[in-house]
Parts: sequence; structure tokens; C-alpha cells
Amino acid sequence: MTDIDRRALLGVSTGLALAGTVPASAVAQTPAPAAPPPPVTAILARYIVGARYADLPANVRREGARTLLNWVGCAVGGSRHETVDKAVAALAPLAGKPEANVLGRKERFDISTTAFLNGVASHIFDYDDTHLKTIIHPAGPVASAILALSQHRKVSGQDFLNALVLGVETECRIGNSVYPEHYALGWHITGSTGMFGSAAACGRLLGLDEQRMTWALAIAASQPVGLKIQFGSMTKSFHPGRAAQNGLMAALLAEQGFTADPTAIEGKDGWGQALSTRHNWAEITEGLGVRYEAALNSYKPFACGIVCHPAIDAAIQLRGEHKLTGAEIEAVELHCNPLVQSLTGKTEPTVGLEGKFSIYHCVAVGILQGAAGERQFSDAVVRDPAVIALRRKVTLKLDPAVPPDKCDLTLRLKDGRTLTRHIEHAVGSAELPMTDAMLEAKFTDLARGVLPDAKARRLMDMCRNVEALADAGQIAVGGAA
Amino acid sequence: MTDIDRRALLGVSTGLALAGTVPASAVAQTPAPAAPPPPVTAILARYIVGARYADLPANVRREGARTLLNWVGCAVGGSRHETVDKAVAALAPLAGKPEANVLGRKERFDISTTAFLNGVASHIFDYDDTHLKTIIHPAGPVASAILALSQHRKVSGQDFLNALVLGVETECRIGNSVYPEHYALGWHITGSTGMFGSAAACGRLLGLDEQRMTWALAIAASQPVGLKIQFGSMTKSFHPGRAAQNGLMAALLAEQGFTADPTAIEGKDGWGQALSTRHNWAEITEGLGVRYEAALNSYKPFACGIVCHPAIDAAIQLRGEHKLTGAEIEAVELHCNPLVQSLTGKTEPTVGLEGKFSIYHCVAVGILQGAAGERQFSDAVVRDPAVIALRRKVTLKLDPAVPPDKCDLTLRLKDGRTLTRHIEHAVGSAELPMTDAMLEAKFTDLARGVLPDAKARRLMDMCRNVEALADAGQIAVGGAA
Repeated sequence: MTDIDRRALLGVSTGLALAGTVPASAVAQTPAPAAPPPPVTAILARYIVGARYADLPANVRREGARTLLNWVGCAVGGSRHETVDKAVAALAPLAGKPEANVLGRKERFDISTTAFLNGVASHIFDYDDTHLKTIIHPAGPVASAILALSQHRKVSGQDFLNALVLGVETECRIGNSVYPEHYALGWHITGSTGMFGSAAACGRLLGLDEQRMTWALAIAASQPVGLKIQFGSMTKSFHPGRAAQNGLMAALLAEQGFTADPTAIEGKDGWGQALSTRHNWAEITEGLGVRYEAALNSYKPFACGIVCHPAIDAAIQLRGEHKLTGAEIEAVELHCNPLVQSLTGKTEPTVGLEGKFSIYHCVAVGILQGAAGERQFSDAVVRDPAVIALRRKVTLKLDPAVPPDKCDLTLRLKDGRTLTRHIEHAVGSAELPMTDAMLEAKFTDLARGVLPDAKARRLMDMCRNVEALADAGQIAVGGAA
Repeated sequence: MTDIDRRALLGVSTGLALAGTVPASAVAQTPAPAAPPPPVTAILARYIVGARYADLPANVRREGARTLLNWVGCAVGGSRHETVDKAVAALAPLAGKPEANVLGRKERFDISTTAFLNGVASHIFDYDDTHLKTIIHPAGPVASAILALSQHRKVSGQDFLNALVLGVETECRIGNSVYPEHYALGWHITGSTGMFGSAAACGRLLGLDEQRMTWALAIAASQPVGLKIQFGSMTKSFHPGRAAQNGLMAALLAEQGFTADPTAIEGKDGWGQALSTRHNWAEITEGLGVRYEAALNSYKPFACGIVCHPAIDAAIQLRGEHKLTGAEIEAVELHCNPLVQSLTGKTEPTVGLEGKFSIYHCVAVGILQGAAGERQFSDAVVRDPAVIALRRKVTLKLDPAVPPDKCDLTLRLKDGRTLTRHIEHAVGSAELPMTDAMLEAKFTDLARGVLPDAKARRLMDMCRNVEALADAGQIAVGGAA
């Protein structure tokens, strides 16, 4: 008998393990744990089902509302990008009952299609929120799904915020349990844990019981989305959108009693085994309802990689204090870690996206425009003669002794003055979070040109005060073009 | 600076690698290959775009039509199962324009929802086709998607068959390249390669060019579906359905110019790296258009695990030759490999599904009913007193010297006679494929009670003669209830 025949004979496909068909070399990749894992899927489900808005500490509620505000701004800001246009062109012919609004646009689609489109739009600028421990962008998969769902079944603002927090909590805890090994394998962790967050949040709004919530998480486990190789293509933004849909579908199926394995996250041949080489289940199960990953969410003040942020922060501060123009400046020197050059050392960017990988451009727009939002990484700004002239005056002084989150920026002016700014922690870091006012300014900047100013202000107010809304779906109505 | 800060600083999320953030222990799981991989995604795309119906050898066309016939029968047969009912209840409220027919049912939905439902239905009985090298069930993800798509854009039967073959070829070759390591990690390979098959077949019918076909495969790479832990739950059948949708979505997006990384299968941080510890890319790229995995597809004559098939085959043969009744039989002895008992040794099954794991039940229905279709694994048959009486007369003589694909079945009759049958290769094995007549009988059995006999016959004829159809969508119309 050949190997093929043997495998075939053993291929009892109604549920039996294929004992003996797997070479030892393959099995060795996933050693059996010393102790059986705790029932992670069921523990999470019980927590999600029981957690109430009233249980959330004030700082968690506050961070949830900030997460929402930042996410809505990013989704509105990205909504007119060609990535969304192409997705609309592909999916509109298949879409169902137009129940839900796409933020920043005029179209209405079924809730699943809308969840996808908002999820895509919110990640296009890479400007959305970040869970710093795992680099998960938590809001995309969760907020996209529940905002659409809120237009299908009426949801109060308090319940909405509770679901948002629980979804973020779920995906970030699962991410913690497998980071960084899972990420190192190639997974884009935002999509490959995001479907859990979406399933949890949607399931909570649907009022699933423990059994059904367990199934929802388990159905989600079968649908991870996203590979890091897609970074740089439209499919990077596809990931949070599809994760939002996958979790929504999981919750809707589970609601109807569609069964899945109740140990799908932690069990043999489950999500953890297939998608990571390490599992710290305690990261998921310990301190539920006591410590909140959702309270650790962070927001980017600048629409580029974090490694550039200290220099931009310094540039903006110097500009603000000294009212500088480019013509006054003789030379700019950045004293920084060598990583700044290796990751963002492009000296002559020619299109907007390249500007994000040019520390020279970042410093120049910080000084000239006092900002580094998506606008500062447009083709037009990258090609602006004044910006080009100033970025050519920027030199780097690389020093491994300078940690990557710190820098010194020195400007030598034509009048002989020398201005220096030391950055110990850049704005947006864990030590120096963006203030509410900064988040509002970011929102306003993202919404400009997409929504009328008055409409954008009302939308911002709804996000900030989501807890007061009788109908969270109003955010989607208010955010539509 | 803490580790968390360092990771955050390095988390330049617009496309940069996180150099230095990954511990060596994690990286060691995915050693760099000795030579760079060939451009697998692009090679596949070029082949799929260029392959024409006229290029298919006659045996490949024939097997393609048999694959279709078997799949349609399985989808019709499973269409009324509660798994499908629950999925319809969950998804109908979101579904779009009712363009496509669900096989065996009255509902019409948008093509994506329909693809999902047909994919689920076709796998419910675990009775669909099997690519024996990988245990992929190839038709589900592919046929489900293109049959629905054929009701959206008119497709000839020849183009349909070509797309079906190319889709099966794509997923099975990709499966070959990572089997068994990929499977051993926990992936349900039917869903975790199936989205490639669906993307290839849908992309071919949409007439994608090489660039867009590459994107379609690459978008599919970000959406693998399915974990083995789901075996025994409804989510096992979810996998081929969702894989069908994922590939369809990938093709529709790619058609609009939605970009993805052109090396998403083979590249660093791509599908291969994330989902398997071994990659034999030559399995994908060599002999395209010369040797066909699609010609190796196989079909189950019996609705249970393959390990039971030799005994069932022997039982049915003895019954057919000797017109036996249960009352005539004193004792039944099965001389077989010990795996038969360890995998299917349930002596007293009480519900239909348990019957599939009872070699005693399998032998009894073979003798009494001359068949082991889905019907023989119903609750009613498992509880039939005549079946119970006979299965208690069955004993096993376990012998490691008997290969698992062979057996001897001996009946001792009350009149003193002894009847014996040796099985060298069971029907349905690679050595003894099901004949066309057997496939038709299986189809008829599956369709009974779902479609009127005359309608089932016409549907069967359309599948057999798919190449003659001017509009392949007629199969879906003809297969609807």
C-alpha cells in the first residue's frame, strides 16, 4: 500500500483524528503543552456575556469614547480614497438591504458590506488607534461591525460603548497571548485577532447567551484574516474590514444556534495551535473586568511611523514658539537613533506615501506647516518647492546611545541663533497621550473636505458623548455624506 | 525604555518590517529557505489566465464533469439539513439581489450568500469528493462559487468546466506544496486552500488579466478558513462555504483593481510562511497543463469514513450474490486491520452520526440494505431492530498483517454454509474508482426526497453533459426546489 492509500484510508473525514499520518517532524513544531489549557473560549464568553456598561471604570469609558472618536475620524478621512471606491464598485452589485451608512459617503448598504467598507476606510491612512503591546489596531474590526449592526437593531449609546470596549478587550487579550510569535509568523495581527473582537462585540449587542457567545468566538476562530506581506497594498486595509465582517457573521450564525467547537481558541487543532508557536493563556483569562487592555489604547498624532514622531513633535514645538519660516533657516540637525534613518531614510520622496518614509520630509512639514497629518503626506505637499528646499537642509546625527523614542532637534538660523528642543517622550506615546483637544483637532483635520464643518462638529460631539445617545446608529447617520 | 515602548517605536505601521522586535526563538520557527522561492503566485496566475477549455485532455474533462455531478448531488442532499436552515435564518436578512438559486431549496439570494449556502450544504454529509493526496474536498469551495457566479454573468458549460478544473487544480497543487505539515498545524485544508481555488475559478470566469489574477490569488491568501478542531460541529461545513465566498470576493475586488502583494503565497510574511512549516513550491509550478491533480479526484460510495469501506463493499457484494436476509445469518466475522476498531469501534450506536463510527453498523446495513448512503446513517436505521440484531452478531478479528484497505468478511449461515469475500481494493479507492453508474445511483439517492425524480434526472443529465450547455447557470435553476 502506498502512502497515499494509507492516508486515504485513514481519512475518516467525519471527525476522527488522522493518527499516524503526520510525520514526527511536523508534530514537533507544536509540542504538547505541559498542562491542558484552561477553557479560554468559554471563559471569555462568560465574561463578555456578563459584563455591563455599569461595570466599566470611568477611565475605561473615557478611553472607549476616545477610541470611537479617533476611529470615526479615520474612517471619514479615508472614505473617499480609491481603495474604498474600488471596493464599492466590486461589492455594491451584491449588497443587500441598504440599512447602514458608509461614513463619509452617500451610499447605504447591508450591514455586513457597510462594516467592511468602514473597516477598510478607517485603516487606509494607518492613522487609526494602536494597542502598543501588540500593534493591533483595535477599533477597525470592532467599531465597523457594531456601528453597522446598530442600524439593524437599535442600540443605546451605553450598550454600544460597552460592546466596543469588550470587543477591543477580547482581541487585545488574545493578541497578548500570542505576541510576538504570532506576528513573527507573518500574520497581520489586526485582522487575525480582529474577528474575535468583532464577534464578541456583535454577540454582546445581539444578547447572546454563554453557549452562543462561545460559538460566536469559535466560528470567528476559523476565519483569521491578514498577512503582513500585504503591507503597502490595498489589502492591508482589507484586513480590518474583512475581520469586522467575519466576526459579525460569526455572531449572527451563533445567534441561530450554528454550532462550533467550544474550545476553538485553545484546543488541539484550534486557533492557537495553528496560528502561533507560543500561548500565554493567562493573558486572556486573568484579571477580566479588573485590568483593561482597552484602557491602554493609543492614537497617533502624526500620519506616519512612530519612529518619526519625536522629531516631528520637536519641529512643531519649535515652530510654535518661534514662528519660523523656511527662509530663516540655515540648517537643521536631528540627533537620533540610527533606526530613524534605516526605517525612514528616504531623502527625496516624490509621492505622498514616500513622504511617510522620509524623516527629512517629516521634519520639514513639522516646521513649515506645524502638522504631520494625512494632508502633509499628499503628493502636493511632498512636491511643494518650499518643503523640498527645507528638507534638503536636514541632516541626521545618528547615535545608538539615543533611544528611538527620544531625540534632539537643532535649528541654525540665518540670523545666527541656534534653537534646540529635546524630546523625552513624543506626544501620542504611552507617557504623553494625545489630549482630547488634540484628538478633536485630528478629527477636524480628517473630516475637512469630506463633511461640512458643522456636520463634522456634530459628529464629533456624538462620539465624545456616545454614552448619552439613545440610538448609537445616529453616529452612522450623522457621519454619512 | 521598556520593551513595550521599543516595540511601539518600531511599529512603523505603513509597511516597514519590525526589525529587531521578534525574539530569535520565534524567528527560528520559520528558517529562511536556501534559495528564494519562484514567483509562485504569478506563475499560477499566468497559467490560469491562459488555460483554455480546448487544452484540457479528455480524461480531465471527464473527471471534471464527474466532480460536478457528485458535488451537485451532495449539495442537493444536504440542502434541507438544519445546518443550512440556521445559516439561511442568519444571513437572509442581509442578503442582496436574489440572483442565484440555492440547490435543493426555494430561496434565491445574491451570489455570495448562495455560494456560501451551497458550499455548506455540499459538505454536511462528508460525502463530497476527495483529493486523496491532501484530503482536500476540492469541489465545495470552487463549484459553489462559480455556479452562483454563472447566474450573475452568463457562462458557457465549456467555460464553466474549464474554470472548475482550474480551481480544483489550483487548490490541490497549493495543498500538495504544504501537506502534511500544514494540516498537522491544525488547518482544515479544504477551507485553508479552498479560497485559492475559488479565486482562480471565479477570476477565470471574470476574464481577469494576469495582473488582476495575481491580485485575486493574493487577496485570497489573506483569507484562509478552517480549523480541524471544528470537526464534529456545523462549522466544519462552514469552511468550504466561506472559502467559496472569500475567493469570489477576492476575484471581484481584483477585477476592480484592488491591489495585493503579487508574491502573497510564497513571499516573506506570506501565506506559505504563516500557514506551514514546509513548502515544496515545485508541486505548484511544475507540469502545469501537463499533469492534472483535478484528474485524481475521487468520490465516496459510502457516507462514512474510508476505513469502513472495504468491509461495506464485501457485505454488499455477498448480499447481492446470495440474496441474504438477517434471519439466515448466525454470525459475521470481519478479518481486518486494528485501525478499523480503533477508529470505528462503536458497538451500540444510538443516533445516525454514531453509526458512521460503528463498523458493526456499517456491515449490518451493507448486508441488510445493500447500501451505506446517508440514508443508512439516519437515526431511524440506526435504531431499526433488524439492524441492531444483525450488528450484534458481528465480531472483529484484528490483524496488523491485514492492510487497512483490505479485509475478509465471513458469514456463517444458520443452514451451515459459510460465505467469504476478500476485498483487495474497495470501490471508490484510487484503484477501483466509482463507475459513472455508481455516481448516478449515489446522486439519485441523495436527491430523493429533495427533488422530484424527473427533475433530479434532468439535473443529473445537465451535470454529465455540462460541456454542451450554453448557460451553466441552468444547473442552478434546475437544481432548485
